[in-house]
Amino acid sequence: MYILKSLIIPLFLLPLTVCAQLPHAPAFTVIPLGVKGGLDESNLSAYMVAPADSNDYICLDAGTIYAGIQKAIDNNSLSGSVSNILRTHIKGYCISHPHLDHVAGLIINSPDDTSKTIYGMPYTLKVLEEKYFTWAAWANFADAGEKPVLKKYHYALLEAGQEMPLTGTSMRVEAFPLSHGEPYQSTAFLIRSGDTYLLYLGDTGADTIEHTDKLNRLWQKVGPLIKKGRLHAIFIETSFSNQQPEKLLFGHLTPRLLMDELRRLGQVTGTAAMQDLPIVITHRKPSGDQEKRIQQELQDYNPLHVKLIFPVQGAGLHL
Amino acid sequence: MYILKSLIIPLFLLPLTVCAQLPHAPAFTVIPLGVKGGLDESNLSAYMVAPADSNDYICLDAGTIYAGIQKAIDNNSLSGSVSNILRTHIKGYCISHPHLDHVAGLIINSPDDTSKTIYGMPYTLKVLEEKYFTWAAWANFADAGEKPVLKKYHYALLEAGQEMPLTGTSMRVEAFPLSHGEPYQSTAFLIRSGDTYLLYLGDTGADTIEHTDKLNRLWQKVGPLIKKGRLHAIFIETSFSNQQPEKLLFGHLTPRLLMDELRRLGQVTGTAAMQDLPIVITHRKPSGDQEKRIQQELQDYNPLHVKLIFPVQGAGLHL
Repeated sequence: MYILKSLIIPLFLLPLTVCAQLPHAPAFTVIPLGVKGGLDESNLSAYMVAPADSNDYICLDAGTIYAGIQKAIDNNSLSGSVSNILRTHIKGYCISHPHLDHVAGLIINSPDDTSKTIYGMPYTLKVLEEKYFTWAAWANFADAGEKPVLKKYHYALLEAGQEMPLTGTSMRVEAFPLSHGEPYQSTAFLIRSGDTYLLYLGDTGADTIEHTDKLNRLWQKVGPLIKKGRLHAIFIETSFSNQQPEKLLFGHLTPRLLMDELRRLGQVTGTAAMQDLPIVITHRKPSGDQEKRIQQELQDYNPLHVKLIFPVQGAGLHL
Repeated sequence: MYILKSLIIPLFLLPLTVCAQLPHAPAFTVIPLGVKGGLDESNLSAYMVAPADSNDYICLDAGTIYAGIQKAIDNNSLSGSVSNILRTHIKGYCISHPHLDHVAGLIINSPDDTSKTIYGMPYTLKVLEEKYFTWAAWANFADAGEKPVLKKYHYALLEAGQEMPLTGTSMRVEAFPLSHGEPYQSTAFLIRSGDTYLLYLGDTGADTIEHTDKLNRLWQKVGPLIKKGRLHAIFIETSFSNQQPEKLLFGHLTPRLLMDELRRLGQVTGTAAMQDLPIVITHRKPSGDQEKRIQQELQDYNPLHVKLIFPVQGAGLHL
């Protein structure tokens, strides 16, 4: 009788769940260690991501590490010491591009870090190797570049379109090149845990401004995942408010340009699939009241009714 | 009669002042923007210094700028917006050496900064030019190095033993090379305002460990200023506690090594002149409880009875 009941209830509930398009059960835990697009050294782009049932995190970009972990501990989003979380729970770093506001935390914490992998496309790892992890500027904690190599970090080269395991976690990553204002390139990371996905974009301009199709290619790839309900969130930048002149965007997005790009993505998925899709807004530049203006402009014009999330340093997200 | 009085009173007070060794009137205002020796990106070495009656500051090292100014505003040590203080009140930067925990704030804030001068010895400016202010890693905001040069910052080369004006302030600087663990060099800055001085040392090892006489030469130079009561403070590092093994000092000081060096300085000045001399302890490394241990060890063994000051981010010092 008990067996029968346990069979009946799920069968009874299943159609309801599908019809009502209930939110997904969270598949990922994300701890934002830093959320701002520059200037404030205590709060620069870095996001710890793990499967919902795991403490094995990968860190997406690494602008601020130590101060962000401390904030997450203060907020009860993480427990333990900063040192233990840095050394034990962060299993590796995916770096979107080598601008200092995306790598400073990794470099500054490298003396106290443990052995792990740094994932990046060639243009990212080349700058780490030639500029930062050098004996003139710092120390070469990596396993390539200027000798002697201390081999604390292993550089893992990502190739576009090739999924790679993220060592020490159950997740995998696929990289997509982005355009970040000539001549800079950046990277989007599609993180997979089982059959669920999370998409993180480093700094990027809009295809129309950058004269490229890199975002369009990415939308063609992830659109089908959104249609199937497998993509749980998109982390994407909005650095400037709509007031920023087009010629001073330096490879970044505004609210209007973001919504234009999401509309293109909606053409792949259909508009229904975009409704309530979590879009996590990263990299707002903290000049004057710009962060507030960006938030207001996005909330005022959100034609696809995506779920806008404005991450807070140290406050965990369940996506 | 009034004229006579005004002559008599100072003459009468003068011998008393000398005999009682009253503290100096403060000659400098120092706003610590960051005080730690690494890891915590929100609080890395940077000290704004101005004559006591001025708002025209020079910034000695630049590990954390934005987050430090914000903290100083929160503490009522500075007033205005972060952006205005950065752009208007910091007139230039003296960089002791180019390790990232001493320059990250300068680089990260450079897009929003105004035109100013960066002072450094050749080994410092070379790394800024070849590694950080490059088009691969960031943008070349300086006036030398990889083209195109944006010329926001002017590199001013400091030569040992030559005093140079600090543009935009009434102060002058003289640089002294320090040894910071083979092959790294670092710099001490002797800042002068009128006939008063403040000495700031970047990271440095002890002469005995570094097999050099660089600190000894510095003590020979500043000892006479201390004897005359003209040196108002020494900012010097103590990165590690006494537990740190000698072979793992990486060009840094411990409490014991600092007191050894101050003893050598005391041999130049005489011990009486060292008593109550403000010694501001910089660059404690925040691993575990090390910051507390360093403080305790210094307080427990202070044979010359110098005035130990442990700076707090954002809390102004009047020296």
